[in-house]
Amino acid sequence: MFGKETYISRRARLLRLMKESEADGRRGIAVFPGNVEAPQNYRGNDYKFRQESSFLYFWGIDEPGFAAILDLDSGEEVLYGNDVDIDDIIWMGPQPSVASKGEAVGAERTAPYVGFFDAIRDAREKGRPIHFLPTSRYYNTMILSNLLGCSDTDVRKTGEITGGKVQTASLALTRAVISMRLIKEACEIEEIDKACEIGYLMHTAARNACRPGVPEQDIVGIMEGVTISKGWGVSFTTILSQHGETLHNHRHDGIITPGKMLLIDAGAESNTHYASDFTRTIPCGGKFTQKQRGIYDIVEECNELAFQLAAPGIPYREVHLAVAAKMLDGLKALGLVNGHIDDMVSEGIAGLFMPHGLGHNMGIDVHDMEDLGEDLVGYDDDQKRAPQLGLGSLRMARRLRPGHVVTDEPGIYFVPALIAKWKAEGTDKGMVNYSEVEKYLDFGGIRLEDDLLITEDGCRRLGLHRLPIKAEDVEASMA
Amino acid sequence: MFGKETYISRRARLLRLMKESEADGRRGIAVFPGNVEAPQNYRGNDYKFRQESSFLYFWGIDEPGFAAILDLDSGEEVLYGNDVDIDDIIWMGPQPSVASKGEAVGAERTAPYVGFFDAIRDAREKGRPIHFLPTSRYYNTMILSNLLGCSDTDVRKTGEITGGKVQTASLALTRAVISMRLIKEACEIEEIDKACEIGYLMHTAARNACRPGVPEQDIVGIMEGVTISKGWGVSFTTILSQHGETLHNHRHDGIITPGKMLLIDAGAESNTHYASDFTRTIPCGGKFTQKQRGIYDIVEECNELAFQLAAPGIPYREVHLAVAAKMLDGLKALGLVNGHIDDMVSEGIAGLFMPHGLGHNMGIDVHDMEDLGEDLVGYDDDQKRAPQLGLGSLRMARRLRPGHVVTDEPGIYFVPALIAKWKAEGTDKGMVNYSEVEKYLDFGGIRLEDDLLITEDGCRRLGLHRLPIKAEDVEASMA
Repeated sequence: MFGKETYISRRARLLRLMKESEADGRRGIAVFPGNVEAPQNYRGNDYKFRQESSFLYFWGIDEPGFAAILDLDSGEEVLYGNDVDIDDIIWMGPQPSVASKGEAVGAERTAPYVGFFDAIRDAREKGRPIHFLPTSRYYNTMILSNLLGCSDTDVRKTGEITGGKVQTASLALTRAVISMRLIKEACEIEEIDKACEIGYLMHTAARNACRPGVPEQDIVGIMEGVTISKGWGVSFTTILSQHGETLHNHRHDGIITPGKMLLIDAGAESNTHYASDFTRTIPCGGKFTQKQRGIYDIVEECNELAFQLAAPGIPYREVHLAVAAKMLDGLKALGLVNGHIDDMVSEGIAGLFMPHGLGHNMGIDVHDMEDLGEDLVGYDDDQKRAPQLGLGSLRMARRLRPGHVVTDEPGIYFVPALIAKWKAEGTDKGMVNYSEVEKYLDFGGIRLEDDLLITEDGCRRLGLHRLPIKAEDVEASMA
Repeated sequence: MFGKETYISRRARLLRLMKESEADGRRGIAVFPGNVEAPQNYRGNDYKFRQESSFLYFWGIDEPGFAAILDLDSGEEVLYGNDVDIDDIIWMGPQPSVASKGEAVGAERTAPYVGFFDAIRDAREKGRPIHFLPTSRYYNTMILSNLLGCSDTDVRKTGEITGGKVQTASLALTRAVISMRLIKEACEIEEIDKACEIGYLMHTAARNACRPGVPEQDIVGIMEGVTISKGWGVSFTTILSQHGETLHNHRHDGIITPGKMLLIDAGAESNTHYASDFTRTIPCGGKFTQKQRGIYDIVEECNELAFQLAAPGIPYREVHLAVAAKMLDGLKALGLVNGHIDDMVSEGIAGLFMPHGLGHNMGIDVHDMEDLGEDLVGYDDDQKRAPQLGLGSLRMARRLRPGHVVTDEPGIYFVPALIAKWKAEGTDKGMVNYSEVEKYLDFGGIRLEDDLLITEDGCRRLGLHRLPIKAEDVEASMA
């Protein structure tokens, strides 16, 4: 938790933004349901508690069973939560009062949790506009749809809030929250640096454990243990696979085999819930083959290029396209594609090899604010998503600004089913040399990812240490 | 996953049990919604997938987005799930078809997921009885209450199913499932033994890491890493604390301090989702003090007594009470209580020191089937819950039968708030020597737990190895 001033000033700023956004005189209330426990296999046996990210951002309290309301007309704030009884003390130990928890985050007033429901019902009866963010958890979906008499899907989509009968999540509130959370404060950057340091430790532990004959699952446990020892845990389900061509591979039933490469895409969440996200692809036997090295070096150069280009003013979409050009240039030199680079870029040929975007925003969420709407978060108002494979998956396209935190994660993959599909459908317009590409059908995939903070005059890589990335450095670290 | 015969015979047995339980000729359908992914902080960033336990038991498939229906009149079985498309292959890799997954668990017919909803709507229109188990996850709560037009709380409580308008979870189905899952099959015992071996490894790693100056959180990461390397992960949130008097302490912000004791209550879930659950309490400096040893030995003797007594035919409630008597006898020798042992047992004096039950059922869930109703699972029809503190929390009271798996976890705690409450309210009827007890206000707590399988002629401790438990063995293991 940060100092109370952080939360007070964030809520004050939000109030100002909401005042600016509204048209008529009636602003209504902004409601923030925090998360409750998420049952794993039964109620009472819950997953490790994770607070709702925007609740954490504005209200700071990292415990289940809290909610809050900000009155956009009067400016009044109420934090809702229940004090404990003797049973709770026996099972959970003595707990500070809700009032003192509210005090710690500068909340003006506290009340029992049930008051949250009452206040929403009251606002609804009076026809006051009720603003909330699209819900992520099913519990919050359920309570809001019940309280507001709208459908499960309505509470997950954004629209104009008028206080009338049709009720969705609030576009105005969503835009205001995105505009704030996109630009990281100094205290946040400090926490992301910590998360990156844990990420460095976890990847280092994994690399040290990667030896022929070791089960992949063993390595996953070793690296995830580090994140639990040093932080909250993993910021997302670890991707660790000798089948790097599968982008989000969560099976870990292989045995480390010389000649293959191990792709590890994993990050940590700090104790304060800021994320890191790194990918490295390492040779299982300690040395890359010549063929692996040819592709690896292209990906490494693409990662470096994005780092060189990322700076205030340039849209990250353009960085993605510059990386695509660099990648196609490298693949052309290997004889895998042919044609003018510009033509290949505009035809989206890079998508065959990199069917994902260059990066995404990162913060309290590893894909920051993804549930608030990927386009609202990642695209400026004058930008549109491309339909092409790869560029179409780009989560962060915005003009970069100081305080943005983005990932830089190019990759080259050989996905047999996708190659066969393009070949059959002629998607490549004759620019792919399938006879050469098919020599790579058992190659797998390579991805290399760092986390970047956009600064006043460029960017810096987050974290104290950088994981080895140049092929020779990776090999030396495994020797 | 077990062989398909396991699932076929379980479903056949369930069908027989349901036929026996129904009164009129119309049996209806039994519906099994499997789990979907559980969002952690946003949809798409999910907690590690955990299948719904009874779905896993009857249908075997350990993936999100499946459901099944067993027609209790015709005996027809349908497994619902969606096949993958090219996007899924890029992100998740090639996947076997739903048909082949159904084949692997002997399901007669498969269909797309949406058919599950259609089949329930169809049965409802026809007034056919619809049987389901109380839901644990909010998603399943939401879809069933929407499909059946009943409230969120109705789908979590059990009642008679008639096919009429009032719809709750099915008492008949719940009873049938409990009767089956309570008695473990040989293939299940093998998996529980594996989970116990992981539990042994995790506790051993923790004990080895417990040295003065080490942050508690470091130890948690080390031991949880073992569960991820060797199994699915932890079977419940690790309890690791130098404040053992707090029964479920999930804070790990202390530093290991000589003179204190570290209570570790933690277990693993095997890759096939069977649980283990062990507790040990170890001296942070490697040696117990004399005062600690006095209490420790009582708890250790209580643990041993339960092991000696547990056998077919004896209600576990009686084992709990025998342990309470043993505990009071030991506390009396230390001068903490006074009175006839039988009187103290019947007045529930043990509850001041052990405000929880002796144990619970364990299986696919660490508190097996807790969401099916604790009394239905843990109590015979002729048994009732006691109101007393401690005994009233006893989760497993049933007459033991071969194949039951129960925990044996006595503990003695000194909870300052509880002691003050009893003293103020005179709850002890003069049987507690508060002047002596108050010398233990900073003592903390001790719990010692093993997992028992009830056999034909007694019981055995589960797992290949037993964690050191005698005080001298614990000290030797830390030397």
